[in-house]
Amino acid sequence: MKSINTILFGLGTVNIGFLKILLSRKQELRRRYNLDFRITGVADSAGIAINASGYSYEELLELKKAKGKVTGLKGFDQHIRPEDMIDVLLPDLLIESSPGNLKDGNPGLKLAKKALQKGCSVVLANKAPLIFAFDELHQLSDAYGGGLAYSATVCGGLPVINVLKRDLKLASLTHLRGIFNATSNYILQELEKGGTMEGAIREAQRLGAAEADPSHDTQGHDTVNKLYIIMKSFTDYSGSVGDIEVEGIQHIQPGHLQQAASQGKKIKLIAEAIPTGSTWKLSVKPCEVNSDSFLGSCDGWEMGIELHSDFYECIYMKNYEEDPLGTSAAVLRDAIDLCTEK
Amino acid sequence: MKSINTILFGLGTVNIGFLKILLSRKQELRRRYNLDFRITGVADSAGIAINASGYSYEELLELKKAKGKVTGLKGFDQHIRPEDMIDVLLPDLLIESSPGNLKDGNPGLKLAKKALQKGCSVVLANKAPLIFAFDELHQLSDAYGGGLAYSATVCGGLPVINVLKRDLKLASLTHLRGIFNATSNYILQELEKGGTMEGAIREAQRLGAAEADPSHDTQGHDTVNKLYIIMKSFTDYSGSVGDIEVEGIQHIQPGHLQQAASQGKKIKLIAEAIPTGSTWKLSVKPCEVNSDSFLGSCDGWEMGIELHSDFYECIYMKNYEEDPLGTSAAVLRDAIDLCTEK
Repeated sequence: MKSINTILFGLGTVNIGFLKILLSRKQELRRRYNLDFRITGVADSAGIAINASGYSYEELLELKKAKGKVTGLKGFDQHIRPEDMIDVLLPDLLIESSPGNLKDGNPGLKLAKKALQKGCSVVLANKAPLIFAFDELHQLSDAYGGGLAYSATVCGGLPVINVLKRDLKLASLTHLRGIFNATSNYILQELEKGGTMEGAIREAQRLGAAEADPSHDTQGHDTVNKLYIIMKSFTDYSGSVGDIEVEGIQHIQPGHLQQAASQGKKIKLIAEAIPTGSTWKLSVKPCEVNSDSFLGSCDGWEMGIELHSDFYECIYMKNYEEDPLGTSAAVLRDAIDLCTEK
Repeated sequence: MKSINTILFGLGTVNIGFLKILLSRKQELRRRYNLDFRITGVADSAGIAINASGYSYEELLELKKAKGKVTGLKGFDQHIRPEDMIDVLLPDLLIESSPGNLKDGNPGLKLAKKALQKGCSVVLANKAPLIFAFDELHQLSDAYGGGLAYSATVCGGLPVINVLKRDLKLASLTHLRGIFNATSNYILQELEKGGTMEGAIREAQRLGAAEADPSHDTQGHDTVNKLYIIMKSFTDYSGSVGDIEVEGIQHIQPGHLQQAASQGKKIKLIAEAIPTGSTWKLSVKPCEVNSDSFLGSCDGWEMGIELHSDFYECIYMKNYEEDPLGTSAAVLRDAIDLCTEK
């Protein structure tokens, strides 16, 4: 049995879902992968708790239910910094699922770098570290031997990154289009039905999908970040996030969608990559698509991608994921991959 | 540089496509994966040719173009049996892409077993060995350390097997439905347009998709075999191919399809798996689906699958693959995986 000393950074929906899955699949994890994840550190916005002999999954789940924060946990320490957890615990695995800080990627970025520098493997569900330091994180992974995986950062449980990196090996992308932000896709669907932007946002917030400030979704920046991660993962794209053309859905009116519908079309927030010979033309913007096309079929809480390549003609993938458990399961598959590779 | 001594069994579309890709991506294969595939043995229905120092990709492609067979190749040997190639060449990798023999799986099955017993890795594009000896091949792979991969056997380049085994780790399937046979899907489309079964089959044969005897496709057995491989790969299914209920499309008339169309429906040859608690209810039969549903959207040369599971809600994947190069590329991705894992 391989016991994996694991730090959970963030104790929100994703890592709580991860713990729930661990609890329900503990025996199967041992039997099939010979793995046991021992949670030796947890951190959220309230602070940090460490316990070298490991917290039980049950106590973490009960604490979250009762208090919502790690404050009351045995081993809670107000003075330790996130990066110190790495020195103190020397974990095998860091799972970084904190809310993304899109100003500078911290504290997640600092923590991920520190972990990789110690040869610890890192699973990211938070995109921010990749947006600020995609290349540096990969270089640290290569240099110190810790693995790095982040399949949960793009389209939740839909394995877009894995299919590109592992299954489309050596193929050249000739065209890529996708819908990567479920909140704006849901808003567009509600507008088409005659709803208002405000009403749709409130409902998305009630369901836990949209943030208090949903402008990151509606203005297209979340989709831009996902397109950036895809391009960096699979192509030689050397540009930055700022090089991607972006236009959000904030100015779309119900009338636009209804007019499109009368012509058998829908308006979707589409990410697109077109090779231009020397580089790539990348954009995120509202586009009309035929209602009966693949992207036209991605409704509401669905996200999808179409991948055109020289070898594989076209591969289409989409998921329906209303519950974020798929994202937690994506974290688990990454964790298993990293812990069984070595 | 890791030089991989490789035997190609079969020199039809799949392995010829594999050679074409190797030729065009030789440098990239070396740079990115540190791999070089050296073809030391080739065999087709005309016989066997071996050359321990390796055939060039160009000479194999030219020979195929000029003669269609390995007969004229240096190292051609009328007396050697397929299994002897393993003893003589002690290859690192066998790529088995011969036409499937659905009577007993041989000679591919014998060859694959012999290779695995010698610790050689095996990539299968031919389903037949898996149909007759799925468990035994996996046991040999485990016992002797050679890898076994077969992502090309189901839906060509669409990574159905890989997504199930690698990305849906630990999830429990709650429902699976798919269209796995492009020839019958194309025939149904042509019938709906008012064509005849015979005309559609002739066209599918002209395009190289259908066999001289297409009954394996039209009677549903090819779909049954793919469903079997999926279930054996991802679940604890312990039944046999014969336990899967099967009904083909041979009795479908244009009128059936047109009547369905008038109600917004299509008839598709659907493979389905439903858990029954203790085991699975597996079937392949023509079913009506809504035209605007996911499976309804899989037209002509498309194949697709919808995977419902406890963790991931629903993941949908389909591909458009008119050219079999996607299947060759799937063989390559399997070969790279097996040769970089060790």
